[in-house]
Amino acid sequence: METILKSAKKTVVISPDNPTRIIGERINPTGKKRLAASLLEGSLEIVEKEALEQIEAGADILDVNVGAASVDEVDMLPKAVKLVMETVDVPICIDSADPNALRAALEMHREMAPEGKPLINSVNGEEERLELILPLVAEYKAAVIGLAMDDDGIPDTAEKRFAVAKKIVDRAGALGIPPEDIVIDCLALTVGADSKAGLITLGAIDMVRSELGVNMTLGASNVSFGLPEREVINWAFLAMAIQLGLNAPIVDAAKVREAILAADLLLGRDDYSMRYIKAYKKRIKK
Amino acid sequence: METILKSAKKTVVISPDNPTRIIGERINPTGKKRLAASLLEGSLEIVEKEALEQIEAGADILDVNVGAASVDEVDMLPKAVKLVMETVDVPICIDSADPNALRAALEMHREMAPEGKPLINSVNGEEERLELILPLVAEYKAAVIGLAMDDDGIPDTAEKRFAVAKKIVDRAGALGIPPEDIVIDCLALTVGADSKAGLITLGAIDMVRSELGVNMTLGASNVSFGLPEREVINWAFLAMAIQLGLNAPIVDAAKVREAILAADLLLGRDDYSMRYIKAYKKRIKK
Repeated sequence: METILKSAKKTVVISPDNPTRIIGERINPTGKKRLAASLLEGSLEIVEKEALEQIEAGADILDVNVGAASVDEVDMLPKAVKLVMETVDVPICIDSADPNALRAALEMHREMAPEGKPLINSVNGEEERLELILPLVAEYKAAVIGLAMDDDGIPDTAEKRFAVAKKIVDRAGALGIPPEDIVIDCLALTVGADSKAGLITLGAIDMVRSELGVNMTLGASNVSFGLPEREVINWAFLAMAIQLGLNAPIVDAAKVREAILAADLLLGRDDYSMRYIKAYKKRIKK
Repeated sequence: METILKSAKKTVVISPDNPTRIIGERINPTGKKRLAASLLEGSLEIVEKEALEQIEAGADILDVNVGAASVDEVDMLPKAVKLVMETVDVPICIDSADPNALRAALEMHREMAPEGKPLINSVNGEEERLELILPLVAEYKAAVIGLAMDDDGIPDTAEKRFAVAKKIVDRAGALGIPPEDIVIDCLALTVGADSKAGLITLGAIDMVRSELGVNMTLGASNVSFGLPEREVINWAFLAMAIQLGLNAPIVDAAKVREAILAADLLLGRDDYSMRYIKAYKKRIKK
C-alpha cells in the first residue's frame, strides 16, 4: 500500500517496499520555550531554521505545529506552512488540534501547491474528531494520521488499539478516503511507567501491518520518557517497530536517523549499503 | 523451553521468559594478536583479565576459546577453563574445533564442578561434526550450540538454515539429548557483502522460534563487518533478533549490553526498568 505525499516539487511515497520515511518533529513548540515565545511574538525565524536543519539531518517530510498557549493558530499555522514550503521542498504534515487552523493551513497548502498532497496530523477514534477531521481530509484530498485512541483514552492492549485503527480506516472509507491515505499511529507510552508499554505498541503495530496493511507513523521517543540514556532505548524501539511495519516515524532526524538507516540496511532495503555509508560520510565530513 | 547451564556455584537459565543472557565472546584469540601471542607462550594472564572485565561488563556466561596457530589446545583449553572457573563463578561455554580439546576441557569442567553443566561451542549440520560432537554432549550431559550450516556451507535462505537447525535437534534427540540442551546459532553474515544477509538471519530466527521453540545464540557483530559505525548496526540487529527470539547472543558485553537491556526493557522483561537503570547508574559511577 502506497501513501503518496506531495509538495509543489517533491513526491514522497511511504510503503513497506521503500526505505523508512522520517517525519521531522521539531517544528512544534511543545516543550520548546524559545520556539513558543517567538511564535507568540509572531516570529517564524526559528521555524525556518528548524526546517533547514531537519532536511540537512535527513528528514523526508516536515511536521508543522504552532500550537502553544495564546498563539492564534488560525493565523500562524498557514503562515508557518507557507514559510516552510518556501524554505524547503519536502511534503508537509500539517499538525493542529484546531480544525479551523487545519482548514486555513490546507487552503494555504493548496495555494502554494495546487497539485500537492499534505498529511494531516491528526484524527483519532473519538467521535467528535472523526466528524470534524475526516471531511477535511476528503475535501482537500489529503492523507491523515490516525491515532489509536478514542473516547475512552489510549487503550491498554494491542488488540484494542488495533480495533481503533480499524474503526478509523472504516470511517474514512465511508467518506471515500482510501486506506492508503490513512497513516496509523499505534502510540508509544513510556516503559518507565509501565513495563508492558513497549510490548503493547509493538503488538498493535504487528496487528495493523498484518490485518490492515496500512502504513504507520509513531512518535517513538515517548517510549523512553523519564529514563536515562533515552537514545539507546529509542534506537532499539525504532529497530523493533520498523521490523514489524512502522515506516514513517515522527522523530528528531538528527538524533535517530542513523539507527533508522541501520534498521533499513538490516531489513534488505539498502542495496550495497549505499544510504547508510553516504550518511556516514556526510557526518564525518562535518 | 529452558536451557540450564551450571558452574560450581551459579546456575543460569536461558529461556524466552527470562532476560536475554549474554555469552561473553572476548576469550578468543581470533583477531587478537596479544592474546594469541600470550597463549603461545603458555600465559593465561590476559584470559584472567578478560574474564574479570567481562563479568564487570555484565556477561552471564563466558566463552573460552584458545584456538590460535601453534597453540596446543588439548593442553591449554582445560587450563584456561580451570583458570576462568577459579576467577569468576558464571557458567562456561567451552569453545574449540578440536574434539580432543573439548573432551579434555569437559573433563576439567567435571573435576571443577561435578554437578556443573557447560555449554559446548559447537556442533553444526556437517555429518562429521554431528558424529564427533553429539556423543560428547551426551556423555558429559552438557548443552551445545548448533550452527545452522552443513556440508554445503552456510545456506543462503532462512528456510535452509532452519532445516539445518531442525536436523541438529533431531540428531541430538536420537542420542537422548533433549531440545532444551540445543542452543541454535542462525549465523550472521555481513550486510556489507549482501544486503539480504540480515533478513536471512532474522527470518531463520523467526522460524526456529516458532517451529522448534529452542533457545538461540548469535555471533551478532559479524553482521556489520566492513561497515562504518558498526555499533549502530549491531545494536539495531540485536534489538530485532531479540524481538524474534534470540535470547543468548555471543557478544562483547562492554559494547552491546546497554542495547540488550533496552531491548529487554521494551519487550516487558524488566519490571520497573530496574535492570536498565541499575546498569546506567553503574556506568555513570565510573
